Amino acid sequence: MTGRAGPVRAAVVGGAGYIGGELVRLLLGHPRVELATVTSRRLAGRRVSTTHPNLRGLTELTFTAPEDLGRHDVLLLATEHGLAMGAMRGLLDLADTVVDLSADFRLRDPAVFAAYYGGPHAAPDLLAEFVTGLPELHRKRLRDADRISVPGCMATAAILALHPLADAGLLGAGEVTVDGRTGSSGSGSAPSAANVHAERSGALRVFAPTAHRHQAEITQAVGVPARMTATGVEAVRGVQVLCRVPLADGVDEAATRAVYRRYYRDEPFVRVVAARRGTYRLPEPKILAGSNFCDVGFAVDPHGGWALLVAALDNLVKGGAGNAVQCLNVRFGWPERLGLEFPGLHPA
Amino acid sequence: MTGRAGPVRAAVVGGAGYIGGELVRLLLGHPRVELATVTSRRLAGRRVSTTHPNLRGLTELTFTAPEDLGRHDVLLLATEHGLAMGAMRGLLDLADTVVDLSADFRLRDPAVFAAYYGGPHAAPDLLAEFVTGLPELHRKRLRDADRISVPGCMATAAILALHPLADAGLLGAGEVTVDGRTGSSGSGSAPSAANVHAERSGALRVFAPTAHRHQAEITQAVGVPARMTATGVEAVRGVQVLCRVPLADGVDEAATRAVYRRYYRDEPFVRVVAARRGTYRLPEPKILAGSNFCDVGFAVDPHGGWALLVAALDNLVKGGAGNAVQCLNVRFGWPERLGLEFPGLHPA
Amino acid sequence: MTGRAGPVRAAVVGGAGYIGGELVRLLLGHPRVELATVTSRRLAGRRVSTTHPNLRGLTELTFTAPEDLGRHDVLLLATEHGLAMGAMRGLLDLADTVVDLSADFRLRDPAVFAAYYGGPHAAPDLLAEFVTGLPELHRKRLRDADRISVPGCMATAAILALHPLADAGLLGAGEVTVDGRTGSSGSGSAPSAANVHAERSGALRVFAPTAHRHQAEITQAVGVPARMTATGVEAVRGVQVLCRVPLADGVDEAATRAVYRRYYRDEPFVRVVAARRGTYRLPEPKILAGSNFCDVGFAVDPHGGWALLVAALDNLVKGGAGNAVQCLNVRFGWPERLGLEFPGLHPA
Amino acid sequence: MTGRAGPVRAAVVGGAGYIGGELVRLLLGHPRVELATVTSRRLAGRRVSTTHPNLRGLTELTFTAPEDLGRHDVLLLATEHGLAMGAMRGLLDLADTVVDLSADFRLRDPAVFAAYYGGPHAAPDLLAEFVTGLPELHRKRLRDADRISVPGCMATAAILALHPLADAGLLGAGEVTVDGRTGSSGSGSAPSAANVHAERSGALRVFAPTAHRHQAEITQAVGVPARMTATGVEAVRGVQVLCRVPLADGVDEAATRAVYRRYYRDEPFVRVVAARRGTYRLPEPKILAGSNFCDVGFAVDPHGGWALLVAALDNLVKGGAGNAVQCLNVRFGWPERLGLEFPGLHPA
Repeated sequence: MTGRAGPVRAAVVGGAGYIGGELVRLLLGHPRVELATVTSRRLAGRRVSTTHPNLRGLTELTFTAPEDLGRHDVLLLATEHGLAMGAMRGLLDLADTVVDLSADFRLRDPAVFAAYYGGPHAAPDLLAEFVTGLPELHRKRLRDADRISVPGCMATAAILALHPLADAGLLGAGEVTVDGRTGSSGSGSAPSAANVHAERSGALRVFAPTAHRHQAEITQAVGVPARMTATGVEAVRGVQVLCRVPLADGVDEAATRAVYRRYYRDEPFVRVVAARRGTYRLPEPKILAGSNFCDVGFAVDPHGGWALLVAALDNLVKGGAGNAVQCLNVRFGWPERLGLEFPGLHPA
Repeated sequence: MTGRAGPVRAAVVGGAGYIGGELVRLLLGHPRVELATVTSRRLAGRRVSTTHPNLRGLTELTFTAPEDLGRHDVLLLATEHGLAMGAMRGLLDLADTVVDLSADFRLRDPAVFAAYYGGPHAAPDLLAEFVTGLPELHRKRLRDADRISVPGCMATAAILALHPLADAGLLGAGEVTVDGRTGSSGSGSAPSAANVHAERSGALRVFAPTAHRHQAEITQAVGVPARMTATGVEAVRGVQVLCRVPLADGVDEAATRAVYRRYYRDEPFVRVVAARRGTYRLPEPKILAGSNFCDVGFAVDPHGGWALLVAALDNLVKGGAGNAVQCLNVRFGWPERLGLEFPGLHPA
Repeated sequence: MTGRAGPVRAAVVGGAGYIGGELVRLLLGHPRVELATVTSRRLAGRRVSTTHPNLRGLTELTFTAPEDLGRHDVLLLATEHGLAMGAMRGLLDLADTVVDLSADFRLRDPAVFAAYYGGPHAAPDLLAEFVTGLPELHRKRLRDADRISVPGCMATAAILALHPLADAGLLGAGEVTVDGRTGSSGSGSAPSAANVHAERSGALRVFAPTAHRHQAEITQAVGVPARMTATGVEAVRGVQVLCRVPLADGVDEAATRAVYRRYYRDEPFVRVVAARRGTYRLPEPKILAGSNFCDVGFAVDPHGGWALLVAALDNLVKGGAGNAVQCLNVRFGWPERLGLEFPGLHPA
Repeated sequence: MTGRAGPVRAAVVGGAGYIGGELVRLLLGHPRVELATVTSRRLAGRRVSTTHPNLRGLTELTFTAPEDLGRHDVLLLATEHGLAMGAMRGLLDLADTVVDLSADFRLRDPAVFAAYYGGPHAAPDLLAEFVTGLPELHRKRLRDADRISVPGCMATAAILALHPLADAGLLGAGEVTVDGRTGSSGSGSAPSAANVHAERSGALRVFAPTAHRHQAEITQAVGVPARMTATGVEAVRGVQVLCRVPLADGVDEAATRAVYRRYYRDEPFVRVVAARRGTYRLPEPKILAGSNFCDVGFAVDPHGGWALLVAALDNLVKGGAGNAVQCLNVRFGWPERLGLEFPGLHPA
């Protein structure tokens, strides 16, 4: 699509949570977007910057009650899992373009959804209309997509690690495993007995020893079955995944490196990180907080046969809000880095 | 009092919280105490070691409902502030010796209590019966005390820092200030918007810029007005206080050191830490986690006139449960270190 | 001065450390600056992005040996304390504008420098030529300053907290104290026995119980004697200062708030944070990492007479590199926020 | 062997490091051991409690130069890897019983040692004389062992997780993988560019993407090839391993649980942790700091075929010094828990 004259008017639906707050931060700083509305049922009428104190002085917006949401060019949904699917038909009337950041429209197969989310989908006929919001795999379709579903944070990291080898036919036969590690912001801002600071601090909590939900997205995207575990680690932001993969016969370190370089050479937000020296030889999330990068690296076993793939990102940015903004940039024909320039900090 | 033949039968009232759990840990390891009962209204019937997972394999106890609490030799109360004062008369019927670890019986003057706790005391006539459970100041009275009130965690640190100079007459005229820093366990185990990991992690939260409640205890104990602030810092356990004090004319570093050495030479749980070299020159709580030590140090301004006093402790041990056990040891004539031998870890 | 056509060519001298790396990050993202050179004696010839891995993919620069440093429009010095004063005459020949981020040119009085830094200044005659790089106090002079000395991180926070009350005549007689808390990046990137992770992690290290060096800067800037202590806390980035000040007769909360509002209403990087509700009522550094904000707040004692002032910033940004870039923006007549738009993250 | 009348005189060789310090802590508190000597080349003559500040007030010992080491009943070696093998013959002359905590005598096959440690062993003929210091597998041989080699921290956790299933014949054909996570104390106390706080803090550092050295120990102990990776995580103490294992046909959750219960029912320091509810359902190291427990848990994939095993311990205690003391208790016929009673803390 061609550029447009005025700014795009956007609303964040469900703006009180962490993904919602990150959307607000990014959209306030985006030169082509006018963030007109941020909704929250619980906080309607309160200042957005009280809940997201990093935005003090940057916005006078207050939260709008969901029922007062009017027409916008774009809706970005950051509601809890399970809400968007029921409300989607009504929301589609309010905007030409809807970007859903919840889990509701990530899986194309209603049966897989039901198996992983414990019940039937509320709008199964809409599932096929959504394009997966991962520009690295679906850029072409995203250019005119008006229903976009942003993948899960750990799924995004794992898919970006696995896709080049799978797509290039370098995976061997055998099991692909995914070991996800995530900071505490991934489970949202609602207080619970498990995420109170004194319990969650310093945790190495294997909360999903088998079959984490993102496993279904990975299998859907990469086309190979994956076995996924997930551990909560001491961090607020950040996701890292370790994937163990069998390599096809004769695939060595050089061939692996060549594939990653080829696939990601022109990607604005994927960096291949597999250095031979230095402290940061493989991807680590801590230097990515706030950035839209996904760093992807690998180590091929010296005796051959398999490789460890490592990917890292900020779960709220490339694993959520930043990825959504990147999709908007693709959708509206803007430079893909627009509003996403922050590179992350070191030290951190 | 003389020793007794059998073990002392003890109950922890309000054993689901952090102070309660620490009491359970210490009493299970105490050779002269039989921990017979741990109460919790919310968790009655559940295993104690599910809530306090460090105790798995060490106890088969389940929580008892408060209304089923029977007679014991000793009750240790770790209930929320405000509950003990209403229930105290009934509890006093159930045991000869009651040790209260809540804030309810720390202040002797009902008017001061009302000013700091926002309402009248429910049993003002009982206030005078309680002895402050701080052996360093009240060992003699504790030997036959049957109502003991354990002071607050930051108050304990500040009092142990200030008492020697105040008692020896080395304080000058002028303002005494107390800057308390505390880990997240100090605010208990109940989840809230403010103590969720993603919000509390890395905090430097000045939650009491003026007149923290422990200020009243410090003034009561030391006899000089103190101005106290408090900050939540990134830690689960641990309290550190910095006290700025004016020194009387001519008081220098050597005189200060001599006073601390004299007061604490024979104390089993106070160490004077004011080193000239090394990494740990002044007290730090991180090496005290789990131990009953309170480290006390000082630095006299080279130009004279004032000193910075520093004290550190584990808020759940010397600032709570450990201090209570030390009081029991004094009360029952046992060796004062009994059951409190763990020295803390390094590195930590 | 008027705007210029082409970009300003800049060099970072001493770019291997943390302040140096932050300068590189900010200048690479600055639309009016061309970062031409980054020097490091130890790492000459190595990629800058190996040392500062957040910058991978953003720059191909390698470190230049100091002796190969040529002429630039601007030099920014991020060398260790003590080096700039000896090298300054030579450096002044290489650029019209020099911004020093080390401690060497912060104090105007050579005697004060000698007292705080343990020896005579190497270029005392140059001290008077430097303008303090704090736009909030010296914006007018900075507009045509070509020798700029950026103040210390904790000094910056304390000065921004104290200046309005001092300048407006609201301070009473009596002692001003400053309690600084700082993350580990403040002591630089050189490994030592004290800053190894296992020792420094979770620290509450009172490394300067009296007379921290920044005390001299605060007194110089604010005109009142201050007594400063400093504690290393668990954080990589971030500084918070607590200042206790006596208030002049009759100064209450409303008067205090009015003064801060007046002084900082138009400041792009100072926010007044003294909220009555919410989790983040007073300034905290964790939500400021990467941003150039200094948040300033206060709490007036309900009984009057004194106030606690609280300020927070990122020691490497508003406490160093970001402040230097803000000074360049002032000096070259650019919009003051240019290149400094990142607001900080929440949660963090 | 039978008990002895007097205490056992012990020396810690290489007592300045973290494992050494932990040995000192445990032996000072051990009722049957007299810790007579602690050596350190670098710190000879300095107080032990300056380096290990948790021990202030508990010992007046100073470090002895290695060349002044005399005869003792037991030597415990906590030297850097590579030193003990060269010095072993001389050390064996100084004591009847030698316990080596370095990596030098862990592998029985000199060829495997050479492959994993990058060079030939200095005393290959002595390798066969050492008994692996893991009571859970070798208790019987340890009862009269005088050369004991304590296994690596992550190896200990992995072996205790894998051994029951392997020994009981419940492992299926296929790959066993081990994913180790470790705190910063595991890499020792020597400062380096990588372990400086600002770099190591918050790390998720895949420092061994393939073939970590402990892999060789695991394979030696369990008898199945294992593929091991290792990640440094944000913690000072603590190790957690995740092992993915194929299960033999028909092995389900109940059979798995039964095996672990059977193997570890009478073990004083292994707890089976695989709960269906609560926050701490699988092993986590943070509640084990300072304790000698190794918690072992498992989750069997609901679709069968494989399981995830999880083990956690304190790398300096059950993964080092505590395990060594447990071996001494076995060797000298003392109660196995002696001196190792501390259960760990919650919250932590």
